[in-house]
Amino acid sequence: MNKAKRGTSLKSEGELLELIGSLLPKPSEEVLTGIGDDCAVIRPSHQRGSLELLKTDALVEGVHFAKGTPLNKVGWKALCRPISDIAAMGGSPHHALITVAAPSDWGSAEWKALYRGIGKVAQEFGVSVVGGETVRSPGPLFLSVTLTGGVTKQNLKLRSGARPGDLICVTGKLGGSFKSGRHLNFQPRVAEGRWLGGERGITAMMDLSDGLGSDLPKLATESGCSFRVAADGLPLHQGCTFHEGVTDGEDYELLITVTAKHWPSLQERWNAASPKVPLTPIGLMLAPKEHSTPLASGYDHLAKKHTTS
Amino acid sequence: MNKAKRGTSLKSEGELLELIGSLLPKPSEEVLTGIGDDCAVIRPSHQRGSLELLKTDALVEGVHFAKGTPLNKVGWKALCRPISDIAAMGGSPHHALITVAAPSDWGSAEWKALYRGIGKVAQEFGVSVVGGETVRSPGPLFLSVTLTGGVTKQNLKLRSGARPGDLICVTGKLGGSFKSGRHLNFQPRVAEGRWLGGERGITAMMDLSDGLGSDLPKLATESGCSFRVAADGLPLHQGCTFHEGVTDGEDYELLITVTAKHWPSLQERWNAASPKVPLTPIGLMLAPKEHSTPLASGYDHLAKKHTTS
Repeated sequence: MNKAKRGTSLKSEGELLELIGSLLPKPSEEVLTGIGDDCAVIRPSHQRGSLELLKTDALVEGVHFAKGTPLNKVGWKALCRPISDIAAMGGSPHHALITVAAPSDWGSAEWKALYRGIGKVAQEFGVSVVGGETVRSPGPLFLSVTLTGGVTKQNLKLRSGARPGDLICVTGKLGGSFKSGRHLNFQPRVAEGRWLGGERGITAMMDLSDGLGSDLPKLATESGCSFRVAADGLPLHQGCTFHEGVTDGEDYELLITVTAKHWPSLQERWNAASPKVPLTPIGLMLAPKEHSTPLASGYDHLAKKHTTS
Repeated sequence: MNKAKRGTSLKSEGELLELIGSLLPKPSEEVLTGIGDDCAVIRPSHQRGSLELLKTDALVEGVHFAKGTPLNKVGWKALCRPISDIAAMGGSPHHALITVAAPSDWGSAEWKALYRGIGKVAQEFGVSVVGGETVRSPGPLFLSVTLTGGVTKQNLKLRSGARPGDLICVTGKLGGSFKSGRHLNFQPRVAEGRWLGGERGITAMMDLSDGLGSDLPKLATESGCSFRVAADGLPLHQGCTFHEGVTDGEDYELLITVTAKHWPSLQERWNAASPKVPLTPIGLMLAPKEHSTPLASGYDHLAKKHTTS
């Protein structure tokens, strides 16, 4: 096909989001945060202090998981991913709508395996599956999950609140999600996110889905800051290099920024509340005129595909 | 592939929904209606009288629209379909999340065309697009739209409220949606649905997406009734047969039931409020022991595919 006829090609997800935004009417006033954070945030006009969170997330066979992946694991991953986004706002997940476009030769065994994985997540995190759709796909298996959630106004944590001088911290360890298979059985940090949402001094929060090298620059841009990350200070999974910790993606850990003043007491309280999950300072937010540490970027769906295994 | 290895095959969408329901935990108490009506209905614990509506809907190239369909029309249809479901509950649409899995050769021209169609609907019906996702698809174009909405407790209309003796009515005309191209530029009955939601005597409401022959039996089952439809009484689009009016699907008209007592005043008020859209009585709800009029069934995604053109 003639490329010239198809208009300018799009180089990144960011460029595409900008184009899409320009073609849509301005969101209504009750939309606090639309496209651009982990979730959309709605302030219903008739409620005080209580915010609604909305997130949708898609999984495509051959892109987010390899053909032949056990379907209960695909189901687990499909519902855990948006749960991780709700957690990254300081919120709790509520209701899910699940759409599955399935290959035409699926029988009850395939549906059972998929929904056993989904049902396990729903049970564990108190999510009600309230709707969805099943269609036959002439292409690969495709799942789209929409999740609602809630958070109080005080506990809401956005990407945009970090300030120069804040410490950058991550929960857990990074890297090797694909080679270890962790991308199919990770635990979204719901309890940790809710706990952090209630703490003082947390200025921004997001979940690490595309990899620190992609996600930290997004947080920094939203906050109008630069950043410095220490090359030897990343908490890495065993056998992972710094490069893998930065670019592998699908860690589903929480990235937070916290004021230097609040860090000592936060650290102490975290260690008491979550003794099994480390919270590690990995760098510092800087004034926007400073140069950010160059980090190899992780996953961009428009730019490349992960080799899933 | 060996069919025996794949477990029992599934004969209908209803059978699949039953299987899925059995694998999921029981929804929480605030879920008034989960899987099974046009939308899910949530009663937030902190609100009185105000209900949240949730709907998700997918479009697959080659199933819901033919390859080569102008993308602005695909965008129009993708957002109008769930709007029609919100209308069928008596509600108003609020916020949309839109996921697009696009072929890898799409450039900005394709994205622009698609989102021009979506933007037009959003503008016309006051919907805010608050999020979504764009992924590259190794298969056909796939869209998944989730829409939230709201309705007061008094105005909510479910499928389950019809009683023997109620009149069955439809808005507009039926049949020929595919051959006329109407399935790509229909007007969801939002104003009409909201108006009907506020009227007395309406006992059930749903939108006609799969065709009267599929949809009326669903309403009857949910209401625990049988039904009689007069073969010569259907309001048909010009050139359409009774069979087409019953089976073509994608009419996106509203199907309602109304008590015989309220019908005369409703008819009068409707004609004054909506002089351009007919509201036609087409039959009667019957006691469950009666035999329903046999109707050829319309669309079932698991059973067959529409030939789109």
